[in-house]
Amino acid sequence: MNTRIIARTVGLVIRIEAALLLLPAVVGMLYGEHETLYFLLTAVLALGLSILLTLKKPVSTVFYARDGLLIVALSWVAMSALGALPFFLSGEIPSFVDSFFETVSGFTTTGSSILTDVESLSRGMLFWRSFTHWIGGMGILVFALAVLPAAKGESRAMHILRAEMPGPSIDKLVPKVRTTALILYAVYFVMTVVEIVLLVLGGMDLFDSVVNSFGTAGTGGFSVRAESIGAYHSPYAEWVIGIFMLLFGINFNLYYLILLGKVGSALKSQELRWYLIIVALSTGAIALNTAHLFENAGDIIRAAFFQVSSIITTTGYASLNYDGWPAFSKMIIVFLTALGACAGSTGGGLKVSRLVMLVKAIGQEARSMIHPRAVKHIKFEGRPVSRETLDGVMVFFSAYVFLLLGSMLVVAFDGFDLVSTSTAVLTCVGNVGPGLGMVGPAGNFSEFSVLSKLVLSFDMLAGRLELFPMFILFAPGAWKRS
Amino acid sequence: MNTRIIARTVGLVIRIEAALLLLPAVVGMLYGEHETLYFLLTAVLALGLSILLTLKKPVSTVFYARDGLLIVALSWVAMSALGALPFFLSGEIPSFVDSFFETVSGFTTTGSSILTDVESLSRGMLFWRSFTHWIGGMGILVFALAVLPAAKGESRAMHILRAEMPGPSIDKLVPKVRTTALILYAVYFVMTVVEIVLLVLGGMDLFDSVVNSFGTAGTGGFSVRAESIGAYHSPYAEWVIGIFMLLFGINFNLYYLILLGKVGSALKSQELRWYLIIVALSTGAIALNTAHLFENAGDIIRAAFFQVSSIITTTGYASLNYDGWPAFSKMIIVFLTALGACAGSTGGGLKVSRLVMLVKAIGQEARSMIHPRAVKHIKFEGRPVSRETLDGVMVFFSAYVFLLLGSMLVVAFDGFDLVSTSTAVLTCVGNVGPGLGMVGPAGNFSEFSVLSKLVLSFDMLAGRLELFPMFILFAPGAWKRS
Repeated sequence: MNTRIIARTVGLVIRIEAALLLLPAVVGMLYGEHETLYFLLTAVLALGLSILLTLKKPVSTVFYARDGLLIVALSWVAMSALGALPFFLSGEIPSFVDSFFETVSGFTTTGSSILTDVESLSRGMLFWRSFTHWIGGMGILVFALAVLPAAKGESRAMHILRAEMPGPSIDKLVPKVRTTALILYAVYFVMTVVEIVLLVLGGMDLFDSVVNSFGTAGTGGFSVRAESIGAYHSPYAEWVIGIFMLLFGINFNLYYLILLGKVGSALKSQELRWYLIIVALSTGAIALNTAHLFENAGDIIRAAFFQVSSIITTTGYASLNYDGWPAFSKMIIVFLTALGACAGSTGGGLKVSRLVMLVKAIGQEARSMIHPRAVKHIKFEGRPVSRETLDGVMVFFSAYVFLLLGSMLVVAFDGFDLVSTSTAVLTCVGNVGPGLGMVGPAGNFSEFSVLSKLVLSFDMLAGRLELFPMFILFAPGAWKRS
Repeated sequence: MNTRIIARTVGLVIRIEAALLLLPAVVGMLYGEHETLYFLLTAVLALGLSILLTLKKPVSTVFYARDGLLIVALSWVAMSALGALPFFLSGEIPSFVDSFFETVSGFTTTGSSILTDVESLSRGMLFWRSFTHWIGGMGILVFALAVLPAAKGESRAMHILRAEMPGPSIDKLVPKVRTTALILYAVYFVMTVVEIVLLVLGGMDLFDSVVNSFGTAGTGGFSVRAESIGAYHSPYAEWVIGIFMLLFGINFNLYYLILLGKVGSALKSQELRWYLIIVALSTGAIALNTAHLFENAGDIIRAAFFQVSSIITTTGYASLNYDGWPAFSKMIIVFLTALGACAGSTGGGLKVSRLVMLVKAIGQEARSMIHPRAVKHIKFEGRPVSRETLDGVMVFFSAYVFLLLGSMLVVAFDGFDLVSTSTAVLTCVGNVGPGLGMVGPAGNFSEFSVLSKLVLSFDMLAGRLELFPMFILFAPGAWKRS
């Protein structure tokens, strides 16, 4: 590994975080909160650490794919540990492990919370908490690529982009990685602003509109209210947020195509169609299954759509406590928790494109048993899928399931019921937020042991970074000097 | 497809079943039960049907792999439907769907039961129920290969053996398929007799010894007592059955190697070692986690070992109601339910060999990210695993998970709690028997809807026949005339 390039890049990420910490500081000042101090303190600490890390200039420019993975994994761990300090130092979250869990949950856009009384937090902290969603949604390294002077090596930038962007394969929109990152952030920024404006127009106050839009854009799901979005009792806000969650779950490349006027080819996306069909079918099935719980058709459909959109995009907002729904609807929610949104979106989970390829691979296997001599390949998005891509998807799926099972075993040691235990793991690995039972929309993660909270933090990071960057942190081979 | 060969082979299977039905008839007569009539009636019916099916001689000897899969799938459905008749006609199980479920559960060696009061059944019916385990364990088509005159086409026999034997790859022990089948049945028969003798020597009555040994050998798990093996309050019987379950979960090829004196190479089996390590670790973990529930170390270890051995081998006997165990122990039980025993044994589930290959594939993927240019292959049982085998294992795993999820969704429609719903599906696909909650060791499957019972019956057959033979029943391409 190239220690100095890694240290330097992690240092740069931390420096960006130091700058980003000034935003909640400003918010805190506007509200006249003394907790503002802790944002500034953390920013100073981060800057100092960053200077230390970037002190030595790289001697070698040799940079391998594994270095890119290490950079991404270490950056995310480091920025979570630092980002946890304001919560911890201010005493608003008295335990460091809890502060770390909450910050990992923020950056990874999970939205699982250890807070038992979110409404008692200061405004600055609530802003920072939701802002981590916005930063983590598109990725801090993608941000670094967009705002920093062009890196010398295009391949280095590509390694990083590939490791931080969710999905089985990453396309550069334009030849330059930096321009790609800039376009992605511009789309992200504009869509977030539009959502804020729409929520304010609907009568939500500015602070809540901003933090709820951060949570939507990053598909995070932290809310500043105990009852999540349900607290506003506003069908308008539920529709706006419901639709924007759906939009942020779509591959951002498609928005770029639309900007170029290629609306037709954007709509031809196979993943988009599957995604919309799954949303429509799940909404319809849940609406039929829960109809008896509501008074009119509008409420039925809004409740079903909001929850489906929230869970499949891995956001995790709730407009009601669906833990009381019938088993069939809860089972759909559990499946959507594991599935997740489209590749190249801010959503987590397995991703719709992987589901499509797995389903096709199974169909192909059955066909090859019927006609052993037929040509064996499957198509996706109009192109044949290479053996490597398909193998990658299948290995990813296996690793995803094994991570789930292994984590469930550790968390089960706390002795809570199996539904709470298994959905806690599922929702953390999928970066969704709520599960069922104890960790349902009305519950929280406070009662888990320190060990479970650390495992779940690892799961959130692994889920956000597509597993392997976090796995190879434990592989001695990844740390060898080159 | 070659309709006449398929009809003929299914006809032969049914004829064998007609002959096998005479055994419970004899048992019924010995006990002077008038229900004996229904075994004879079913045997006559089966014989008639068999004659009809074998009336037309095949005109073509062209036989494809897909014909082998269809033969296996259709034979299993047909023999289950016929085997259900004695229960249904006698009125001992008043519903045909329930009788079918119970018989599928028997032949597939699952052991899930819809009976609410098993001890009220007649002796003949109890014998038949457990005898289906013994027949299904090694496979009725393997039996046909062993007892019938050598088939003309070796490749045809191999297609059938491959489709009916569990595991990712099947070795012929000796050049002739028929001799292979004979050796397997001989080992199976002798081991069953040894278990019966040991149980009788321990004081269990002959009838119970026989049916419990049938359930052990086939890794089935139907018991003739409401409290399963716990009803005997006999530590000796629990040890004998616990150890024999473990033995029947081992690849039978290893016993053949031992018969040939090659004990060393049998013990070198990687799958065997993983299997024993998993059993030891699970037993140890559960023993520590449940120690507070018992009075002495012997009881702790026996209870942990019996349940682990029963579940990993997919037998499903219980020596106590482990539904009351702590979450951690129950989580282990759930994982073992999905895992299953060794390939080439009578056990169901995913199989240990597939687990090993998947774990290795994930490790390989992580390594190839660290060293992208390194050679990519994994080894198993001392040989490199071909890309086709590994792809097959990964597709199988994906299909296994998707079958679980799809079935859970349908069964969830019944509205029972998520733990009962999901473990009911898991235990049926894995051919284990009990789940947790409503379908726990003290529960049964009687309350599910007709739709759920049919889906679970499909799951048991799919689990026993390694998924694809049952899947292609729904593929129009499989039914095309060749």
